[in-house]
Amino acid sequence: MKNLAYYNGKISSIEEMTVPINDRSVFLGDGVYDATMAANHKIFEPEYHLERFYNSMKKVRITPPLSSDELLAELQKCVNQVDSEKPLFLYWQVTRGTSVRSFTFPEVKPNLVIYIYEASLTDLRHPWKVITKEDTRFFHCDIKTVDLLPAVLASQEAKEKGCDEVIFHRGERVTECAHNNVNILKNGKFITPPLDNLILPGTARRHFIEICGRLGVPVEERPFTIDELLSADEVMITCSATYGVPVCQIDGKPVGGKDRELLYKLQKAAVDDFIAETGFVPDIL
Amino acid sequence: MKNLAYYNGKISSIEEMTVPINDRSVFLGDGVYDATMAANHKIFEPEYHLERFYNSMKKVRITPPLSSDELLAELQKCVNQVDSEKPLFLYWQVTRGTSVRSFTFPEVKPNLVIYIYEASLTDLRHPWKVITKEDTRFFHCDIKTVDLLPAVLASQEAKEKGCDEVIFHRGERVTECAHNNVNILKNGKFITPPLDNLILPGTARRHFIEICGRLGVPVEERPFTIDELLSADEVMITCSATYGVPVCQIDGKPVGGKDRELLYKLQKAAVDDFIAETGFVPDIL
Repeated sequence: MKNLAYYNGKISSIEEMTVPINDRSVFLGDGVYDATMAANHKIFEPEYHLERFYNSMKKVRITPPLSSDELLAELQKCVNQVDSEKPLFLYWQVTRGTSVRSFTFPEVKPNLVIYIYEASLTDLRHPWKVITKEDTRFFHCDIKTVDLLPAVLASQEAKEKGCDEVIFHRGERVTECAHNNVNILKNGKFITPPLDNLILPGTARRHFIEICGRLGVPVEERPFTIDELLSADEVMITCSATYGVPVCQIDGKPVGGKDRELLYKLQKAAVDDFIAETGFVPDIL
Repeated sequence: MKNLAYYNGKISSIEEMTVPINDRSVFLGDGVYDATMAANHKIFEPEYHLERFYNSMKKVRITPPLSSDELLAELQKCVNQVDSEKPLFLYWQVTRGTSVRSFTFPEVKPNLVIYIYEASLTDLRHPWKVITKEDTRFFHCDIKTVDLLPAVLASQEAKEKGCDEVIFHRGERVTECAHNNVNILKNGKFITPPLDNLILPGTARRHFIEICGRLGVPVEERPFTIDELLSADEVMITCSATYGVPVCQIDGKPVGGKDRELLYKLQKAAVDDFIAETGFVPDIL
């Protein structure tokens, strides 16, 4: 298969798959998800993503439809069915179930979606331009929910301004991007916002913190401001498909480009881990 | 039919209706909705709801798939197909369309859902118990989006505490309920939060402001605090199916019950309007 959709055990192409109109994603956004990359039928960092996914379910009180090991086996089974020379985007989601629309929890089983298609890793040789925007999202950004309309609107605005992403801030404090984390390099240190309800606990963020530990790069997990962002040596955007792409422009002003050496060292370590785990060598560095 | 689901012109029972997994409600909460009551094949206050629905679409930049008059004709056609002695809950929704998951807008047509089932109007003779909770939702509460997970979680918490609703507040300022507006009566006045990005512009709220005008009851549209809520003569909850149910208890403390005369006058005017428009006489007063 070239792509795959799975719904409660049923498998088809994405184009053919349908879900009941009463799936609680449709009317209520009542679901959580996670996603990673895979290549050569190998899933990258599944343990990070499963840990976060089970945390998301716990926070929204959805009872896991299966154990973490069972879910990993289902994900692997699906990945094995997709034939591609390219990396795959592997997405999975659980909703509270299928029921007539109601705000309180119905007595039903959760629905499990798996969703796989070909995708690229971000080319790290092309720095991004971004806009900034006041963060008007909810105070549950630590949970990977499907309630993503504010992120959709902000992403589209960035695109229309010729940019690749938006960096959100609450007042002076930088939080994260619409669908990535944002970190900075300054004076040889990796600085990343702390894990609270304002940002997603990014798996790539976690991976880079590990890499810093390995390479002896000091890490600061603390809030930083827009001013610090603008004067950073490098602004570095991370997610499961983006192994630290630098930012070259924020709201039209040039930024970063002052510590390409450290940036490259971190990027290369992340890409090397991807290659070691999947055997796939991406042309992105 | 006893209930009805409509998806882009296709009609079936709710139980049989499915939507593509790539409908942008499923992964992104990328849709808006509106809902009202109907009875005797008459839709209640459609103009208020259509006005709000078109405002919601505009705010999230979804191009209306049809004009307001055409949509009303589709709604009426669907309502006509449902046979019931009871009132109907009439819900409709538009999503940005069907596309492979992406944060920016795809070049596709919006999807239109209509959803109808039997429902009751709230019995106004049974005051509600409520809890209060810090409002952790996004700053787009003026838009009726399907991103409702925080409202789901709060509603369930209220239910588990033996309550009917939750009243949200941002600090001291009362905003609204999880799926209703909240208003107070004090010294013969109807006091309701102002229309900003923290509350939904409720159609019942609007209806009650009109009624107050007709009956010579002074209206104040202004923020009020939790203290004012607790010391109000009446706390009055309103939505399309709830014509001003009083609150008798907040977080276990008794409230209201001090101006049943004015409360009843307002409730009766609203119910009379429903009867005049639909011909259906609900046993709720």
